[in-house]
Amino acid sequence: MPKYEDSHLLEAFRQGHRPALARMLTRVENQHPTTTTLLDQLYPSTGDAWRIGVTGPPGAGKSTLVNKLVTNYRKTDDQVGVIAFDPTSPFTGGALLGDRVRMETIGLDPGVFIRSMATRGHLGGLAVGVDEACDLFDAFGHSKILVETVGVGQSELEVANATDTTLVVIVPQSGDSIQAMKAGLMEIADIFVLNKSDRDGAEDAYRELVSIISMKEMEDGWRAPVLMTAANKGEGIAELSGMIASHRKHLVETGRLEQRRRKRTVAKTRRLIEDELSKKLWTPDRAAQTESGLAQGDSPYTMSQRLIADFYEELRREQEHSKTERS
Amino acid sequence: MPKYEDSHLLEAFRQGHRPALARMLTRVENQHPTTTTLLDQLYPSTGDAWRIGVTGPPGAGKSTLVNKLVTNYRKTDDQVGVIAFDPTSPFTGGALLGDRVRMETIGLDPGVFIRSMATRGHLGGLAVGVDEACDLFDAFGHSKILVETVGVGQSELEVANATDTTLVVIVPQSGDSIQAMKAGLMEIADIFVLNKSDRDGAEDAYRELVSIISMKEMEDGWRAPVLMTAANKGEGIAELSGMIASHRKHLVETGRLEQRRRKRTVAKTRRLIEDELSKKLWTPDRAAQTESGLAQGDSPYTMSQRLIADFYEELRREQEHSKTERS
Repeated sequence: MPKYEDSHLLEAFRQGHRPALARMLTRVENQHPTTTTLLDQLYPSTGDAWRIGVTGPPGAGKSTLVNKLVTNYRKTDDQVGVIAFDPTSPFTGGALLGDRVRMETIGLDPGVFIRSMATRGHLGGLAVGVDEACDLFDAFGHSKILVETVGVGQSELEVANATDTTLVVIVPQSGDSIQAMKAGLMEIADIFVLNKSDRDGAEDAYRELVSIISMKEMEDGWRAPVLMTAANKGEGIAELSGMIASHRKHLVETGRLEQRRRKRTVAKTRRLIEDELSKKLWTPDRAAQTESGLAQGDSPYTMSQRLIADFYEELRREQEHSKTERS
Repeated sequence: MPKYEDSHLLEAFRQGHRPALARMLTRVENQHPTTTTLLDQLYPSTGDAWRIGVTGPPGAGKSTLVNKLVTNYRKTDDQVGVIAFDPTSPFTGGALLGDRVRMETIGLDPGVFIRSMATRGHLGGLAVGVDEACDLFDAFGHSKILVETVGVGQSELEVANATDTTLVVIVPQSGDSIQAMKAGLMEIADIFVLNKSDRDGAEDAYRELVSIISMKEMEDGWRAPVLMTAANKGEGIAELSGMIASHRKHLVETGRLEQRRRKRTVAKTRRLIEDELSKKLWTPDRAAQTESGLAQGDSPYTMSQRLIADFYEELRREQEHSKTERS
């Protein structure tokens, strides 16, 4: 891939060159210094894509479902994007060869862009910037963006916050829906997908899930429906994409979409600020000072106060310096 | 509960008054302004307690296991503390009445202090300060602290970081150990507990788990062992507490304990600083300014830069002001 100047990169991106999108995504992942400026310039081009989160426990068939949804969307949509955070997903290369081969059907389609991103650390927590990645896909002209994540708590919540419609995928297995409830998945689901519904016990699982949902309070007039799919056979996919469209219509008509998106941009602003302050504060010097102070038995409580005072002092000196330079 | 002055509270805490511990825990949860100072004063009294994390998927029997471990420890330990973050745990009152009644056996023991704490938001993320809560239990004189958390990603990692020995509890159920592996539990387990091992299939599950673990690289000479328990019958509890003691011995002898604890205090310092900066930056004014700017279509990227500049300016003005006052 050629090296890009920022202006050239932006130009190539706007002309729809896929390597430019790839490059921008890498910059987001690596927290490249000029990324914020580039994202800022692309921001006015965002807002049209529908962002769909796909989450649920490992083994629920999320990747297969995403694959089939993409194929379905490609009948009408020009461009569809996939972001996979699941380290065990075939999209991220973490699965068996057979799965990967199946994924190549959509992987070879020039209207589909698939990107796997690393999760932060071993457990939970998405990579830096699922939001930024979605903005990029959006600005690039994708009309649907599917974000797949492994079902481990924090990352689910992050995906739910970053997307417009959240699908929670579970399989008919004894107690699975109760476990999902306990794990907090009920709160984030806009639509439940009971996948592998050709299995024994699917009807029971369906009734169990519906009865659990019926106890939940409705949020702004939307009660998460349960859809049965058998993604590997392509069953229920058209119905699911119809339901996603209904959810979109509901959010738009009730004004809830605007609310959600505003909440999202507020959260994003907070996160960007925290990242920047943290980067500025944690110089190698301060990190070393912290380590050695703590090793000598200073309490973290004392140490944090000391570092904050030091940080403020540094900022003050910087400001004075820039003042002097200006005068 | 009477109102305490800080000095009185500290005095009562040091004399071992349980209401003082309860009050301090509440202060930690509520981020009471003088908490840091109090924690700092208690810090030299910490370090003796052994902190045990108990995590795993919902329904694995974690609470029953904790209950039995506490009873076992109370044969030799003066004081044992329990912190429950699992909203579905009987300890937090989230479970059925029958479970709660069983818990009362240890709940009535004056040598046991049980505290349930809220998780941050619906999903993942522990409440503010599992670390601080452990410090309080520790300084109060508890020799064992058990921290129970529901198995949803982020919170597990937080517990693993806050404790000395992490137990991962699973049940013999088809594919459960593979799911645990996918969910990242393999990485954090110091000891695996195969609970409900009186169930059919326990032997198979045991072999499956051991074979998965054998593929894992050993960390500093410790390979997480698998223990079979049937906590509801009290089976395997003595063996488990023996294994926890072995792990402790291992960590102490290899110097790994010191490393772990140093890493923990560094992380805690970072967190304290981030919390404080965030509190200072997010005044109601700035929050309102952010909301309205974003509502008018400003990008989060622009907005974050503007707020950071404004924050720095505020700090500079504060410094100037305090200088003027001093002179």
